[in-house]
Amino acid sequence: MNLDRVKGTRDFMPEEMLVREELFTTLIKIFKKYGFEPLETPCLERWETISEKSDVGGELIEETYNFKDKAGRRICLRPELTFPTARVIAMNPNLTMPFKRYQWGPVWRYGEIKTGRYREFYQMDIDTFGSESMLADAELIACAVECYKAIGLEFIIRINNRKLLNNIFEYISIPENKFSEAFRSIDKLDKIGFNGVKKELSNNGLSNETINKLLKVLSIKGDSEKVLKQAENLIGNKEGIKELKEIIYYLKKMKITTNYEIDLSLARGQGYYTGPIFEVNVKEYKVSFGGGGRYDKMIERFCNKKVPSTGFSFGIEPIMEVLKQKNKIKTSTKVFIAGLKDEAQEKVLEITANLRKQGINTENDLMNKNFKKQLDYANKGKIPYVIIIGPEEIKKEKYTLKNMKTGKQVIKNINEIIKIIRE
Amino acid sequence: MNLDRVKGTRDFMPEEMLVREELFTTLIKIFKKYGFEPLETPCLERWETISEKSDVGGELIEETYNFKDKAGRRICLRPELTFPTARVIAMNPNLTMPFKRYQWGPVWRYGEIKTGRYREFYQMDIDTFGSESMLADAELIACAVECYKAIGLEFIIRINNRKLLNNIFEYISIPENKFSEAFRSIDKLDKIGFNGVKKELSNNGLSNETINKLLKVLSIKGDSEKVLKQAENLIGNKEGIKELKEIIYYLKKMKITTNYEIDLSLARGQGYYTGPIFEVNVKEYKVSFGGGGRYDKMIERFCNKKVPSTGFSFGIEPIMEVLKQKNKIKTSTKVFIAGLKDEAQEKVLEITANLRKQGINTENDLMNKNFKKQLDYANKGKIPYVIIIGPEEIKKEKYTLKNMKTGKQVIKNINEIIKIIRE
Repeated sequence: MNLDRVKGTRDFMPEEMLVREELFTTLIKIFKKYGFEPLETPCLERWETISEKSDVGGELIEETYNFKDKAGRRICLRPELTFPTARVIAMNPNLTMPFKRYQWGPVWRYGEIKTGRYREFYQMDIDTFGSESMLADAELIACAVECYKAIGLEFIIRINNRKLLNNIFEYISIPENKFSEAFRSIDKLDKIGFNGVKKELSNNGLSNETINKLLKVLSIKGDSEKVLKQAENLIGNKEGIKELKEIIYYLKKMKITTNYEIDLSLARGQGYYTGPIFEVNVKEYKVSFGGGGRYDKMIERFCNKKVPSTGFSFGIEPIMEVLKQKNKIKTSTKVFIAGLKDEAQEKVLEITANLRKQGINTENDLMNKNFKKQLDYANKGKIPYVIIIGPEEIKKEKYTLKNMKTGKQVIKNINEIIKIIRE
Repeated sequence: MNLDRVKGTRDFMPEEMLVREELFTTLIKIFKKYGFEPLETPCLERWETISEKSDVGGELIEETYNFKDKAGRRICLRPELTFPTARVIAMNPNLTMPFKRYQWGPVWRYGEIKTGRYREFYQMDIDTFGSESMLADAELIACAVECYKAIGLEFIIRINNRKLLNNIFEYISIPENKFSEAFRSIDKLDKIGFNGVKKELSNNGLSNETINKLLKVLSIKGDSEKVLKQAENLIGNKEGIKELKEIIYYLKKMKITTNYEIDLSLARGQGYYTGPIFEVNVKEYKVSFGGGGRYDKMIERFCNKKVPSTGFSFGIEPIMEVLKQKNKIKTSTKVFIAGLKDEAQEKVLEITANLRKQGINTENDLMNKNFKKQLDYANKGKIPYVIIIGPEEIKKEKYTLKNMKTGKQVIKNINEIIKIIRE
């Protein structure tokens, strides 16, 4: 029998799942501190809902995992989590604004399968709907800074603004019909380098002089306030600059002083951004570990009502790749209680129940194994402690506690053992 | 624009999601105490994997949500979580046994849409693979008892055994080819009553005498050990009775003494059960709130290897229906910090950052609202506390804390306020 999985899908075994669960729990706790609340939407959406929202972008539409159901309706597996939320907002006109939600779950893209690219993968987003204040953007960045710190990554959040990029393009006299192509080229700076971007821009019909001027401006580096000052000197105190100044001001007032910088070369590929944009980079890795930005015009396509919005998406897949390498969790079980069925089962069950009652994750033998095999099971499963129970131990009411990592054994009564395990 | 959801799917708004999250967190914590660890499999499975495993039962196969992908492969949205795990076990022959896993997530059935029945819904399962010991079944029941207690339901877990039912059928001389039909009829006892079951059994070709004899045995009620004794007097100390006695013995040793009973009339509809079966009923409700049983022959269809298995599935949907009615959680936000942008924004941000640092879920105004509208927002969102900050408060470093439920206000410094909120 052929047991293959569907192409582009994965199983997550317990060792990996324990790390994922810890990651999700950590992030969700922080989201709640910032006032984000959970939303869940179906995995299935009507094809029309997404395809009519054309600004999702051609590539995403092409890659949508869609099919006809038994009744002939075209259904799609959601390709991301923002547009289902847009539908929810449109269907609930009385929702109190701002609506701050987090959402996570599987999403699907029917694209080419490469290393690290799957057809079913996970996203985790926070978004604030209904606020045009830069404070909403600053709050997202502050929340993201706390999250990536909690994950334990060496990261920097690069911040830019689409309006500012527009102003720079105008200043350099790039024609407006070449803006979006130019955004996409600049977005590849990390991957294809300055020369690659130059070539693309040149193919896009920009003169060498224009290209050099552009790349010179985009290369302004240094302290965020200084970068903004230099940009202001070139193009004037335009709205994009004002917005970024405001974000920096709010971040400082919220005591967020590290792990972010203004980077004029950040473009983000998608067409729908209208203001600030952000992206997370992690030392030694070229891929994005998360990002987002303001998209003030997307939701009104669903509900004919202005709903300024800003969001941040965590790169669950690259984050998990790093965490899997650092991972120390092997099992959530803390103790295995070893004892032979004929000699000690009653006591094993009693102590198991006692430990579980105290909140300690506990297992015992379910397979009538001998002592050696019971210890093997605990050892293979990386269970940190084993309590050994035999007739002698039962008589004395003192049991052997073995630390499976150090091999050290002590003989103690059950309360002393619980105390050691808890430490 | 038509914004309908796909038929049979739902959105879960934050109020409901907060309850769901708390439910899932509570159950998962208990699963881990019993040594179950997380597994996640894809939402998509190859059609062949499920359809070739014929004992899943005709109805489930017919209701499978399946479709052809762009490459013409038949894909199905998983209809449940056990058979994907069977695939995982078959693909990982070196897995240490017993393999104790929990899994939860959306599953799909393309069935008729009725009240309380959806095409996309959630399941949450615990299963022990590889152990034929009744201790594995007893452990599932012990874990389930702790879970339903933690949820706060008035429940009883009814326990029976397919082998015992077989023995009873033999004793009454029901022909073996009528067994599975009879199981399904008896399974409807709660829904269609004794007369309904009588009628079905009669249509199935059983004589009135046989039916009356059967229903008389199935109606034996009372203390678990007495019920087993009476059954033993009728049919002898058969394996089904021995197994149930063993389970009751283990439960008592694990100090589980309430919330379960032997019920000879419990049948469970599915064909694949081979031993003990369990089902959870909640006072005043007719639907099942969860259940499971032993299925020793299912996994070998995937891997040509005996893998005795037993599992329990929590009825997430009915549990949520009850919890939604009792629900008191409206928001996870604890405090809203009110202040006008021009007068107090700096202090609002400082205190917000301070509270979040202390682990308190905190929001402030992102929409440049006036005081009244800020309080309205906190009120509508059922945020329990509001801290009011104006120029006077900033000067004195004392702020007004309003309890939004009682309306009571106190003026305190920030450390005192944090203490009150924490209580």
